Amino acid sequence: MNDTNNSIKEYLTDKAGLINQAIIQYLPKNNVPDILKKSMEYSLMAGGKRIRPILALATYESFDKDIMEIIPVVINIELLHTYSLIHDDLPAMDDDDYRRGKLTNHKVFGEAIAILAGDALLTHAFGNMAKELRNLSQVSKDRVLQIIEEFADYAGASGMVGGQVVDLTNDQSSTTFEDLVYTHAHKTGDLIVFSIRLGALLAGANEKQLEALTKFGENIGFAFQIQDDILDVIGDSEKLGKQVGSDQINDKVTYPFFKGIEASKEEVRKLSNEAKDAIKDIGIDTKYLCRIADYLIFREN
Amino acid sequence: MNDTNNSIKEYLTDKAGLINQAIIQYLPKNNVPDILKKSMEYSLMAGGKRIRPILALATYESFDKDIMEIIPVVINIELLHTYSLIHDDLPAMDDDDYRRGKLTNHKVFGEAIAILAGDALLTHAFGNMAKELRNLSQVSKDRVLQIIEEFADYAGASGMVGGQVVDLTNDQSSTTFEDLVYTHAHKTGDLIVFSIRLGALLAGANEKQLEALTKFGENIGFAFQIQDDILDVIGDSEKLGKQVGSDQINDKVTYPFFKGIEASKEEVRKLSNEAKDAIKDIGIDTKYLCRIADYLIFREN
Repeated sequence: MNDTNNSIKEYLTDKAGLINQAIIQYLPKNNVPDILKKSMEYSLMAGGKRIRPILALATYESFDKDIMEIIPVVINIELLHTYSLIHDDLPAMDDDDYRRGKLTNHKVFGEAIAILAGDALLTHAFGNMAKELRNLSQVSKDRVLQIIEEFADYAGASGMVGGQVVDLTNDQSSTTFEDLVYTHAHKTGDLIVFSIRLGALLAGANEKQLEALTKFGENIGFAFQIQDDILDVIGDSEKLGKQVGSDQINDKVTYPFFKGIEASKEEVRKLSNEAKDAIKDIGIDTKYLCRIADYLIFREN
Repeated sequence: MNDTNNSIKEYLTDKAGLINQAIIQYLPKNNVPDILKKSMEYSLMAGGKRIRPILALATYESFDKDIMEIIPVVINIELLHTYSLIHDDLPAMDDDDYRRGKLTNHKVFGEAIAILAGDALLTHAFGNMAKELRNLSQVSKDRVLQIIEEFADYAGASGMVGGQVVDLTNDQSSTTFEDLVYTHAHKTGDLIVFSIRLGALLAGANEKQLEALTKFGENIGFAFQIQDDILDVIGDSEKLGKQVGSDQINDKVTYPFFKGIEASKEEVRKLSNEAKDAIKDIGIDTKYLCRIADYLIFREN
């Protein structure tokens, strides 16, 4: 188990390195006001683990394809993810001063620039996605447009933004279990599902494979969030880099709040097994996808 | 002149009616939290003139094409324009309580929902653009991706968002004439240029036609803004629906601030003539484009 754990850490570090090397090159360069450029780069290079684009690469690789050709496409998920963090941290939203130990964007650049840097990253995620898809001659017109449409659907009003809206009103006196499930599925889950679908769509997956990989993504996205909730109750403050019990203190509902710790742990195991089962017999090499799933779901921080 | 003026008003009202009828149908429907849906619809239906999508339709029509087939595509410009108004009005930006006589989005729904409604509209503009471009079989893969890439470029960090960033720091003690030109060209101009290019790209325009129409768009976008500045100095408060002299009171630089009123008026005439000259001999029927240009540029409110 430890060997596997070490090897998957190495895999993730390698891939994150590739993403980090590429990502800064694909930002808009000309005619961008200096402060806007600095603000976009600040949050983009603030030390994210690049899990979403890595999931897209690992899925593509499971079809025995060369990941180097799709790096300029998958980095756009990270541009979009970064915009969502900048806007989530704003005073009108979660009002956070720090993220990953660094000052949040609006604490450094002010609220107006933070809002606009988020807007610019979101906009560029779509523009650069379209630009880089032009270079992939093997992907049809219909499929490239499907990719962009799905990117927006999973990130938009019925996806990530919808999840954030429901999460805004999360409190123990009014939030139902259904609201919590909606939030977990959309706020974090949807972009994870899209990342996996992107890798599959670019690799030319058939309908059966797409469906199986979507179920895989939904399950690990959901399990990831429940594990987040569990760690907030029983985690190690030092490993987490934040205080445990913050959900309870902030009056937030969580999976353990409704179901208890033991049932929550059992649900994580069940979702994880079902995720791996879903992609067992679809003719692709799922080794890395399964290891990433375990790493994400059973992490301690 | 009055007859022409009346007929162009009728033309604009007709086209705005088509846009208004269509636009609400293309919002995301399923799985959207109720308050988010209401907030998006509120600003979208707050009485805009739909000038940008109309410019796309008029350009398409000038190539002797049937506009009905591209309505689901051009409305996405209005989704994006609406997001920009919601974010511009936020307390951290221009801090406006009213727009077109109605409360701004954040005054009705709160800042968090207003930010997220803007994010969702921006995201959906790209998703729905991709979806509807799938239905236009006559437009190639390369061209549909070019359209989405340009949409993002004109709206993003080196376009509209960049213009808004420079406009944030507009004040009479520090803003240079070059900053003002950048703001006018990008904050409003770029989406007008894109609208015209969109109509042309969808109609299959050649390079010479695209170049001429781009110059037309740049000129009328810039003239439109100078006229805005002029009206703020010498306009009729009642026709404008706001007080004249607000730029001066707010310590804002304008074209007349640097060049004086007479030179500003002269510049509007010059830009307008050059705009119309640019598209004179490119083999399309420019009647409506020229009338819309005159209407926008020489308006009194």
